Amino acid sequence: MEKLIGAAVIGQSGGPSSVINASAYGAIKTALDSDVITNVYGMCHGIVGLLNDDLIDMSKEDPDELALMKYTPSSALGSCRYKLADPDEDETDYIKILEMFKKYNIRYFFYNGGNDSMDTCNKISKFMLRNGYEVRCMGIPKTIDNDLAGTDHCPGFASAAKFIATSVMEVYRDATVYDKGMITVIECMGRHAGWLTAAASLAGYLGKGADLIYLPEVDFDMDKFVAKVKKIYAEKQKCLVVVSEGIHDKDGTFITEYQTQGAAAAKDSFGHTQLGGLASFLANRLKAETGAKVRGIELSLLQRCAAHCASQTDIDESYAAGKAAVDNAVAGVTDRMVGFACTRENGKYECKTELFELTIVANTEKKVPREWINEEGDGVNQGFIDYCLPLIQGQTQLKIENGLPRFVNLKKVKAVPPKA
Amino acid sequence: MEKLIGAAVIGQSGGPSSVINASAYGAIKTALDSDVITNVYGMCHGIVGLLNDDLIDMSKEDPDELALMKYTPSSALGSCRYKLADPDEDETDYIKILEMFKKYNIRYFFYNGGNDSMDTCNKISKFMLRNGYEVRCMGIPKTIDNDLAGTDHCPGFASAAKFIATSVMEVYRDATVYDKGMITVIECMGRHAGWLTAAASLAGYLGKGADLIYLPEVDFDMDKFVAKVKKIYAEKQKCLVVVSEGIHDKDGTFITEYQTQGAAAAKDSFGHTQLGGLASFLANRLKAETGAKVRGIELSLLQRCAAHCASQTDIDESYAAGKAAVDNAVAGVTDRMVGFACTRENGKYECKTELFELTIVANTEKKVPREWINEEGDGVNQGFIDYCLPLIQGQTQLKIENGLPRFVNLKKVKAVPPKA
Repeated sequence: MEKLIGAAVIGQSGGPSSVINASAYGAIKTALDSDVITNVYGMCHGIVGLLNDDLIDMSKEDPDELALMKYTPSSALGSCRYKLADPDEDETDYIKILEMFKKYNIRYFFYNGGNDSMDTCNKISKFMLRNGYEVRCMGIPKTIDNDLAGTDHCPGFASAAKFIATSVMEVYRDATVYDKGMITVIECMGRHAGWLTAAASLAGYLGKGADLIYLPEVDFDMDKFVAKVKKIYAEKQKCLVVVSEGIHDKDGTFITEYQTQGAAAAKDSFGHTQLGGLASFLANRLKAETGAKVRGIELSLLQRCAAHCASQTDIDESYAAGKAAVDNAVAGVTDRMVGFACTRENGKYECKTELFELTIVANTEKKVPREWINEEGDGVNQGFIDYCLPLIQGQTQLKIENGLPRFVNLKKVKAVPPKA
Repeated sequence: MEKLIGAAVIGQSGGPSSVINASAYGAIKTALDSDVITNVYGMCHGIVGLLNDDLIDMSKEDPDELALMKYTPSSALGSCRYKLADPDEDETDYIKILEMFKKYNIRYFFYNGGNDSMDTCNKISKFMLRNGYEVRCMGIPKTIDNDLAGTDHCPGFASAAKFIATSVMEVYRDATVYDKGMITVIECMGRHAGWLTAAASLAGYLGKGADLIYLPEVDFDMDKFVAKVKKIYAEKQKCLVVVSEGIHDKDGTFITEYQTQGAAAAKDSFGHTQLGGLASFLANRLKAETGAKVRGIELSLLQRCAAHCASQTDIDESYAAGKAAVDNAVAGVTDRMVGFACTRENGKYECKTELFELTIVANTEKKVPREWINEEGDGVNQGFIDYCLPLIQGQTQLKIENGLPRFVNLKKVKAVPPKA
């Protein structure tokens, strides 16, 4: 394979996570150290920054400061939710991107995000190939939802899972402290895949946790749910329920929509229904049904940005994914997403980076296998525990200053195109 | 002072915190090691356990397991919200308590809680004195609200403050990541005192944090608030607001009551109005006013049980408060609460335990001084930072097992009264 000499650009897209910057840093640092990559640019707010010629020069950052990216939550370069048009219908954005590639002599394109981002990466790769512009395009996965196809798991999932399991353990202690009855409903993120909600089971595995766990993989039956909570509450005067925001009934109606039926539900720019408020909705319903004190808790943004509770395994693997994207691209690979292939033989966990076809990854959703969910559909079994537990090991090595996290502060020096 | 030989009993009451067990452990361990304290009993669910002869024998616990109490959130002995009657009106409970004291030869009474608990402690102490039963009664403070009079600060406050400041730092990163506008409203606990909400300012001090902070110490003006958010949003397309659950207008009406006016607000057994849902109420209002994407986040129970993010300073001081209660009682002191006297000369923080009159502490609320709040009433100044920052130092030494906290599991062996 011939050495491809030129600049690299990296962008971050979609909902952030606690470790997306660890991946970006893995790519940036490896690219800065590479002898074929001439310049390393960051897109401000993902593809939007590339379209608007809003790039920063990563070499201008202080190396020690830049290294703090590894432990800083959210997307340090800024994110976006911009969907590229189908190039067969509208080539405008692609032509603009090609201009930018030429202007900065960009030969390496790294895009760090979820399935929509892999779709973006794939479309750009295909367009450039058709137009004879040589650029190596690599996807670096990120999604707390853990729903990307192919890879064993996604960077970002484990840290969110660790925060959720930890919080459920802590809330369990709080919610069962009184001599009086109490029902608690905790809502986790996850539109179509219940990985994050399933992580609540880790709390029960090691200590005391949820009585009931509901994932979107199984149809939710409100009457059965209420009856089950009532039964548990009658037995022990306490009940802790963890639900995914995306639970729906057998007709596919989101349970959260029960409260707004008739009104049109808000949708994001990808057409996803905007959910929320499920915990308080279910809490109110259970209060009416039982007369108990009921509390609804939405973990909200905390679960995807709680870097102080990140898994060091997740951080290290995320970094490795970013590094592997650059290493592979430099070695000649293009049009692939870096993912993980893992083994868990005899309790020994091993994780290696592996490459996946972007076309397979883009817009596919991997769900929690039915065989890891109990028959009743209100809990998970050992299969899930064995899968998830290795991923949350290790406490973050986050730098603490004055008792609080010391996150990165980038200078963000505007990139200057090389002289022609 | 004559040595008082007999048993000790300890109970926990009121809303739990991340470190109330550190205090209880400080008292239990010191009592177990004492040569005048013959037995150490724990009340199951505070004073309710004492009234119902539901006591456990702390000497039956494995010492290594018991030591995990120091890092376990919530109240390991169980809590209650039981208000003792005024003894001038109804002596029933006090007579029952006296019977229990005699049955177990209890000569040391330790009660671990907030201002209502100090009131309980005070009433029991006075009743026993009037009835000629020698027992030394000591209050061990706990309240994340930090509103107890006399003491520099309260055990439990700093850990909640550390979690709040950390979470605001993290949510700031998340809530400002997109190229599109976003307004975020975070709701903290604090009915009448804004200490916890003020702690959000620590995030801004060290990194990037809240634009506006509203405490119950200053009357809240909805129109002024909306105008201010609109102005900040127009300038930078982002606005992060932190509010106390207890903010109210100049007429004393809680802002959260604006959404339920006409309906009677729920009250707890102490007659406190039950608040909640403020973040989403304000978020909806701001969405209607600005058209921006707005997110409301209620930190809910997480802020008072997030032991994984506790301040080691808080843990150590809480332990010291429990220990001091026993040491002082054994030395002859009674009818006092242990608190802290601190100095912060030239940035050097020192904290010593000190004793306070229970009558002064009970049912008094210490608020954030007006001079620590800015003139506009929408932020705090260096005075608060200098006060609070030393308290949140040190990361918890919490034991981790399999990537998750290893909290205490007590056997709770039922206490047997000594032979007469």
